[in-house]
This record gives sequence, C-alpha cells and structure tokens, in this order.
Amino acid sequence: MEAERRGLLIILSSPSGAGKSTLARALMEWDNSLRFSISATTRAPRPGEVDGVDYHFVDEATFKDMVNDGEMLEHAHVFGNFYGSPSAPVRAAIETGRDVLFDVDWQGAQQIANSVLRDHVLSIFVLPPSIRELRRRLETRGQDSDEVIAKRMEKSWDEISHWDGYDYVLVNDDLTTTFERLKTIITAERLRRAQQPGLMNFVRHLQSEFQEVEG
Amino acid sequence: MEAERRGLLIILSSPSGAGKSTLARALMEWDNSLRFSISATTRAPRPGEVDGVDYHFVDEATFKDMVNDGEMLEHAHVFGNFYGSPSAPVRAAIETGRDVLFDVDWQGAQQIANSVLRDHVLSIFVLPPSIRELRRRLETRGQDSDEVIAKRMEKSWDEISHWDGYDYVLVNDDLTTTFERLKTIITAERLRRAQQPGLMNFVRHLQSEFQEVEG
Repeated sequence: MEAERRGLLIILSSPSGAGKSTLARALMEWDNSLRFSISATTRAPRPGEVDGVDYHFVDEATFKDMVNDGEMLEHAHVFGNFYGSPSAPVRAAIETGRDVLFDVDWQGAQQIANSVLRDHVLSIFVLPPSIRELRRRLETRGQDSDEVIAKRMEKSWDEISHWDGYDYVLVNDDLTTTFERLKTIITAERLRRAQQPGLMNFVRHLQSEFQEVEG
Repeated sequence: MEAERRGLLIILSSPSGAGKSTLARALMEWDNSLRFSISATTRAPRPGEVDGVDYHFVDEATFKDMVNDGEMLEHAHVFGNFYGSPSAPVRAAIETGRDVLFDVDWQGAQQIANSVLRDHVLSIFVLPPSIRELRRRLETRGQDSDEVIAKRMEKSWDEISHWDGYDYVLVNDDLTTTFERLKTIITAERLRRAQQPGLMNFVRHLQSEFQEVEG
C-alpha cells in the first residue's frame, strides 16, 4: 500500500555559525515526523556516543562495501575517517511519507542532489547576514583560539562560495523570519506533484466516475 | 539596476468549474503587485471589451508576425481565431519583480513551460473533488443546455487528463484550504535562488567583507 505522500530529502547547509543547527532543531520540534539522517562512520565512538543514534559505527570494509553497492547517498573522507549517508533508512522513511533532514556540506549536498533519490531532494542554503556577524558568533560560541577561528572562517567561505548549487537560499538576518520561510518552503514542496503518489489513484478514481456519469 | 526579486510566471489551470477563476481573483486581491497576462487575439472585440484591458486586439498579419518573431509565449487557433500570450509585457513585469498570472489550458501551459522564460514558470493544476461536484457547479452556474454542459464535461476531462504536466496539483475540496496552499506555494517559490538575482550582489558583498576582515 502506497503512502499518500512521499517524503522529501531536506538538505540544510550553511557555514557554521549561520544558524543551521538552531534551525534544524526548531524544525524537528515543529514536525516530529521529520527524521534526521544518521551518518555512518569508520571513526571510533567517542565517550557517550551511541551506535545507531549519533552514528552508525562501521569498519572500513563494511563502509567500502556500502559505497561500492550504491548504498551511500554521499560520502567523504575526512582526517583519515570515512563518513557517509546510508540510503536504506532514507528510502524507508520517504516511502512512508516522512521527510529526512540532512546536515551536510556543499559536497555532500551535491552528491545527494545527483543521487538516485534526486527527484525528492529539497536543498536550502542559509547565508549569514555578514562576515563580521559570522565571526562574532564563532567567537562567542566557545574558547577556540584565534587560529582555530581563522580556520573555521576559511572553511565557512569555502561553504558560502557554493551557495549557488541550492534550490533555495535564505539570508539569516532574523531567526524567526528565517524559520517561518523554512517552514513555508517545506510546506509548499510537500505539495509538489512528485511528492504525492496518492494523486495518481485519485485521478484514476475521477476517471471511473467520469465514465459512470458522462457515459 | 536589477530588482532584488525576479517575478514568476504563475500558470493556474483547471477544468472549468473547479474553482480557478475564484482562486485567481482571490490571489489578485491578496497581492496587488500580481499582473494578469492579457492575451492578444485576432477576434473582433465584443461590446464593452476594451483593447489592452480585456485583450490586445490585433489583425492576423500582426499576430502571425509576433509568432514568427518569437514574441508569443504560447498561442492557439480556436474556432477560426488566434489567441496568444505576448512575451514583452511578461518580461517587463518579471524583470521588475512582479509575478504574472496566466489563465491557460494544458496546451498553453505546456508551451509556456517550454518557452524561453521556462526557468521562472510555476505551474499549478487545480482538480475538482469529484466529477459529480464539477457537473453540479457547471449546472448551477447558468442556463446552459444539457448538450452544452456535456460538451464542457468532455473538455473538462481532456483538461484533467493532463494533470501530470504541472509542478503542483491541488484538489479543491475546500476553497479556503486550497487558497491557503496556493499562497504558501507562491510565497515559497518566490524564495527560490533563481528568483532572487539580488543574492548575487549580496554574496559579492560578503566576499569583499571576507577579504577585508580575514585578509
């Protein structure tokens, strides 16, 4: 039995400090049917991390098999460890009408947007209102050294420079406004024809009715 | 000077009786920056019709020149008369950030969706809740003969059978809900990257700021 609605793969990208985590949390509270995509990784669990909650912890052979079998929507190699988004849980979720939220960088976003599930991808990029504001948020966030912050800013610029690969771009001037826009975009995209497999049955039903009534 | 926002070509199609005219009117009241696309036609003006308001009345040679010069987004030949949507006023509107609303059938919609302005097209199809309800609305509407209504119903089915060529499909069970959904879709689509040429300048500005702050 097919669900009325097909879920979306919602990609939310931004440089760190532009509000992405806050927005993602607010979205999960707004709609608790949303699922967060849990990454698979070859790195060792840190104290407190739970397998299947924080990450799917797998060994390198398993990870590589998954990539070779096309079971990763995107993957990357970072500081000697592999990270990726397994496709099976995403497929299961969208087939039952649940959206899946991805927190990935522009490279991950690009891979997902070109994956087999590309027709159901909604990608949104969040821009900071200014570079100074971005730096301020990184500075007030923790006790990072100037050097670490400078590196983060470089990484942020790399991320910002790929803003034009996304379906929607929001400037996060004001968190409330940005969150309203995000909800509007998701609410609208759920109404796309491609997201509503149930429509096909509805039109078939109209057709039988037409034949019955109009002969 | 480029506008911050680029307008959309909003195509609203439905079989007659599904609520399209009511929805179009409600949209124009909701946002008075919306423009309605005025068709050009070779048919003679009827009493009370004003050139440039109801239609652009043109002769056949002028019409054919416009088609040959690529100045029509779509056109059709109906009962010996030509009808079409001139592109110049649409371009002028969308370049200044105004959306243009089109009341066209599936053939017109398809032509516009394949026109040079295709990147800015938003197409929405409105389905009736049932065939019986569609017939009821046609019957209560006026003093049409059974024969005329039967013909309208045939035309309606032809229209419905092309529902799958649209970006969005709404089942008009309840006018208030459908109108809310329509507004949500338009509000969201205005936020698409492709509709916001002003973003390019904003990112350029961020880049200068980055170079200034981060060296």
